[in-house]
Amino acid sequence: MNIVVMGGGTGTYTALMGLKKYPCNLISIVSMMDSGGSTGILRDEFGVLPPGDVRRCIVALSESTPLMKKLFQYRFAAGNGLKGHSFGNLFITALKGIMGSDAEAIKQACTLLNIKGKVLPVTLNNVHLCAELENGQLIKGETNIDIPKHDPALRIRKIFLEPQAKAFEEAVHEILDADKIIIGPGDLYTSVLPNLLVEGIREAISQSKAQKVYVCNVMTKYGETNNFQVHDFAGEVEKYLGKGVLDLVIFNDKKAGKHLLERYAQEHAAQVGFSLEKMGKWKFIKTDLMTEPNLIRHDSDKLAKVIFES
Amino acid sequence: MNIVVMGGGTGTYTALMGLKKYPCNLISIVSMMDSGGSTGILRDEFGVLPPGDVRRCIVALSESTPLMKKLFQYRFAAGNGLKGHSFGNLFITALKGIMGSDAEAIKQACTLLNIKGKVLPVTLNNVHLCAELENGQLIKGETNIDIPKHDPALRIRKIFLEPQAKAFEEAVHEILDADKIIIGPGDLYTSVLPNLLVEGIREAISQSKAQKVYVCNVMTKYGETNNFQVHDFAGEVEKYLGKGVLDLVIFNDKKAGKHLLERYAQEHAAQVGFSLEKMGKWKFIKTDLMTEPNLIRHDSDKLAKVIFES
Repeated sequence: MNIVVMGGGTGTYTALMGLKKYPCNLISIVSMMDSGGSTGILRDEFGVLPPGDVRRCIVALSESTPLMKKLFQYRFAAGNGLKGHSFGNLFITALKGIMGSDAEAIKQACTLLNIKGKVLPVTLNNVHLCAELENGQLIKGETNIDIPKHDPALRIRKIFLEPQAKAFEEAVHEILDADKIIIGPGDLYTSVLPNLLVEGIREAISQSKAQKVYVCNVMTKYGETNNFQVHDFAGEVEKYLGKGVLDLVIFNDKKAGKHLLERYAQEHAAQVGFSLEKMGKWKFIKTDLMTEPNLIRHDSDKLAKVIFES
Repeated sequence: MNIVVMGGGTGTYTALMGLKKYPCNLISIVSMMDSGGSTGILRDEFGVLPPGDVRRCIVALSESTPLMKKLFQYRFAAGNGLKGHSFGNLFITALKGIMGSDAEAIKQACTLLNIKGKVLPVTLNNVHLCAELENGQLIKGETNIDIPKHDPALRIRKIFLEPQAKAFEEAVHEILDADKIIIGPGDLYTSVLPNLLVEGIREAISQSKAQKVYVCNVMTKYGETNNFQVHDFAGEVEKYLGKGVLDLVIFNDKKAGKHLLERYAQEHAAQVGFSLEKMGKWKFIKTDLMTEPNLIRHDSDKLAKVIFES
């Protein structure tokens, strides 16, 4: 079974970590609009495509030694110009210097880290994510949407790319060839939806005979999805993907503990609620997808089981 | 056959590249006093032992893919704070961050690069190389001897370490266990002799039943070995190693082309000459050890053949 997982951040990592235990061919298609931190600096200084999310997906699928994976995720804690850089990002940047192209660099990083499956950039174009807020204000750059300098209470009206990006051909091919396409989990406007803005991706998903599944987040994110419920997430996905395209929505229905929710509330994040009435237009699976205490996150094994068996 | 190669720079790399084709167990013992370039910055900023020479020896003995070796030697051409850094140096520095010790970091780098043989630091102490010039002037730091800011016409009277360094136990063990110990080729005062300054190394070489061989450089180096002939090199080695310790001196006797020598003369470097009369106290082999045109260097295959068969 060919399973395509679309996203970018921690959510995609979690899904891949779980799914890799199942007998399937995993293809991770990664958003290439990240512009923050180590990744943002390398974009600016080397003109390399953002390596951060690619790196995380490679680690998720790597069958290398634990040390090699640890090294790939290592972050320098000191050094003028080195501090804060992820070693894996430098690894991919150096490979681009040697190979001459981002596509080859990512491909070779996958080979050197001995990954099971594929990690593909959604596009090879160097583009930036932009958002228009409900008051008409324009925000440029993924990191400025992810970590807002504007009033985070404002809703995002729409997002778009500047300039427009074309889909990486191999990613389109894998979407068309997939049996399941998993969209999410992950930050809605900065990790998940950016993939759907790329010219050719939305069309490929529509054409594909794959089952199209959206996995909803467990927590809202301040400045992106304040007070969102599951149907708000799914509705936004279909706004960019096309109405009626999703075959299934998977979401968590287990309540987190009060104490934990209070801690998250300090960062203006709340557990994503749901209204069965408002889910009427979607086929859905609601179940316990939570990890054990301390963090409100998806459990990779629980999530993979539901995805695989649905 | 256990062959220990002692040195640090390009000369050691050349010897290892040739010797690895022979059926022998190769142990490279590396000077840890380098303080220039990418290595010097990482020493300062991370307190890591100098990774540069270790990196080169690892590449020489690595059986990894050509791409992995290329990556390990890759140097960043841009980036604030990244420009000029060797990726392999960052690799070793990151490993130290993970493993907590220089010895473990070097050991794991050897494993990850799949080396045939061993690369061992001569010491785990963080020390600096100092030189006293013929006019009494003191120079501190390997890079200031290697690339002199003082008058390069002045001879080096003696070199010493500050503070004193103790030999890495595993290096001592390998010296005692060796069948051949190859000293050089390489920059005399900055790559070769520093190894002999480390407490325990000179004693181990003397005690070892191995054949002790000095391979002389093909070119003089301005500021270190101006006008040196083979017997000057060998004499300096025995000054630090002990008189009569060398069993054999190997040197090149093929003249380089005039045109080439003129190019080198611009950098005040000359081909190392020899006087058979002055070689009287040493057993020696003189033969053609030169590479093909363009560079006056040792040919790794010619050098290895003589070493192995002598």
